[in-house]
Amino acid sequence: MHRVLLTNDDGIHSAPFKALWKALIDKGFNVSAVVPEREMSAAGKGITLHKPLRIWRIPTKVGTYRIAHLVSGTPGDTVTVALRYLLEDKPEAVLSGINVGDNMTVDNIFTSGTIAAAIQAALMGFKSAAFSVEIPQSEEPRPADKFRSHALIAAEIAEWMLENGLPEGVDLLNVNFPFKISDDTPVRLTKLAKVKFENYVLERVDPRGKPYYWLGSNPIAVSEEMRGTDYYALTVEKAISITPIGLNFISPLEERRADRERIVEKMSDLISVISNLVVSLR
Amino acid sequence: MHRVLLTNDDGIHSAPFKALWKALIDKGFNVSAVVPEREMSAAGKGITLHKPLRIWRIPTKVGTYRIAHLVSGTPGDTVTVALRYLLEDKPEAVLSGINVGDNMTVDNIFTSGTIAAAIQAALMGFKSAAFSVEIPQSEEPRPADKFRSHALIAAEIAEWMLENGLPEGVDLLNVNFPFKISDDTPVRLTKLAKVKFENYVLERVDPRGKPYYWLGSNPIAVSEEMRGTDYYALTVEKAISITPIGLNFISPLEERRADRERIVEKMSDLISVISNLVVSLR
Repeated sequence: MHRVLLTNDDGIHSAPFKALWKALIDKGFNVSAVVPEREMSAAGKGITLHKPLRIWRIPTKVGTYRIAHLVSGTPGDTVTVALRYLLEDKPEAVLSGINVGDNMTVDNIFTSGTIAAAIQAALMGFKSAAFSVEIPQSEEPRPADKFRSHALIAAEIAEWMLENGLPEGVDLLNVNFPFKISDDTPVRLTKLAKVKFENYVLERVDPRGKPYYWLGSNPIAVSEEMRGTDYYALTVEKAISITPIGLNFISPLEERRADRERIVEKMSDLISVISNLVVSLR
Repeated sequence: MHRVLLTNDDGIHSAPFKALWKALIDKGFNVSAVVPEREMSAAGKGITLHKPLRIWRIPTKVGTYRIAHLVSGTPGDTVTVALRYLLEDKPEAVLSGINVGDNMTVDNIFTSGTIAAAIQAALMGFKSAAFSVEIPQSEEPRPADKFRSHALIAAEIAEWMLENGLPEGVDLLNVNFPFKISDDTPVRLTKLAKVKFENYVLERVDPRGKPYYWLGSNPIAVSEEMRGTDYYALTVEKAISITPIGLNFISPLEERRADRERIVEKMSDLISVISNLVVSLR
């Protein structure tokens, strides 16, 4: 029986998170769920240094009632507390998500709390994967049953990772799902686009006449040059995007232990497995 | 006259930040200083989405009095506000620091607010560099004049970057200084070590009998295998470490636009320039 730590940055009530929890249990996984107490979207991989953390045990309905732990910190803190304190037996992998909203591009690798949890786990030597689903603005509220297909696929990716390992030079997988998945949804092995949004600053005036500012962002248009990236896969191909991440390579002076061809070859097996699963969905 | 945006994650009162500001002015740079209102160490590259930001103009003594802008957000927010709202003329580069405390390793690339500001700038298309200085625990308080050498060297690195550009495939420089710099301090071109600390969780009990938890960390021993990394350079060689960062390469599927040899060759000029400057320090 596979043992995994499941976390996220949205907190315990997130519908796609609970769907993944359920799918992992249905696959026979032993799942420890440890999540931030509060929503921690866009928190990045911060660490809580200057204040102490609290931990709560919360019964949560996932089929039957099961215990989740809540940590009053960032997603990175949550992973550290789970792996260094709460879990007596080391899990085989750390899974983060499924996040409400996509997490693509280099920019988001540094900003997303969902990915931060997976990076924290990878830096501590664990296999890890981050899962996110694009949510159209029209799709609110979000009942858990909408995410059954996403959760099934995420659980299959986790199982593949546990049984096959990750190619040398790959530390984690970053997976993005389109909201609508059907039997003709493509599955793509991708690299990261650099940015998805252009930021702007919006000035307003408060009731006392003092200015304040909102950060806003406009999506950048997708171009044919972006083919092969996560952003292109989701936006143009309406595909499931699986992006291998190699943390060390951010140093361009790092030896290229991992050549692209070898990684593509090993990962192409995962792409086949998931493509077959998608075709069988109904 | 070179125009730069200067920021940090320690706020306006930081001694090594003010030393760098002064050194840039002395070199004839036109400096816009925009910093987070509060200390934002270990905040990572978070974005403030759910609350508005405020901006203040504060006269600050740097030789004569000069205006700094303070932003009530993260270091990444601060850079966005400066580049998209405050600065009418686009700066040629964004400089972050000098940070109080070193910022080394892949782990810290994701956690440091100082580096997050430089990454935000790089993602927005600006040349950038992050500067940090190791602070021994015995060295408190920290008068600004202790950082004159560090600031001179940082300003020289900034000038080199502006006049020579960064090699293709390098988005930013991450620079760490030892606290003590003398005319025999080596200068090293480095890659990132993976982690520097092993985290642990410390349990305490509050006056009401409820447990709470601190995150702590122990430094990992430096080994000969780490030669060539930033952590080895600072710890074993007591060197100034200059680490080129290539954000896209975190995708191992990314084409290797930048080969190591070409980057090393171009950067070796900077290493000579700074080595000569260090020898001339007294």
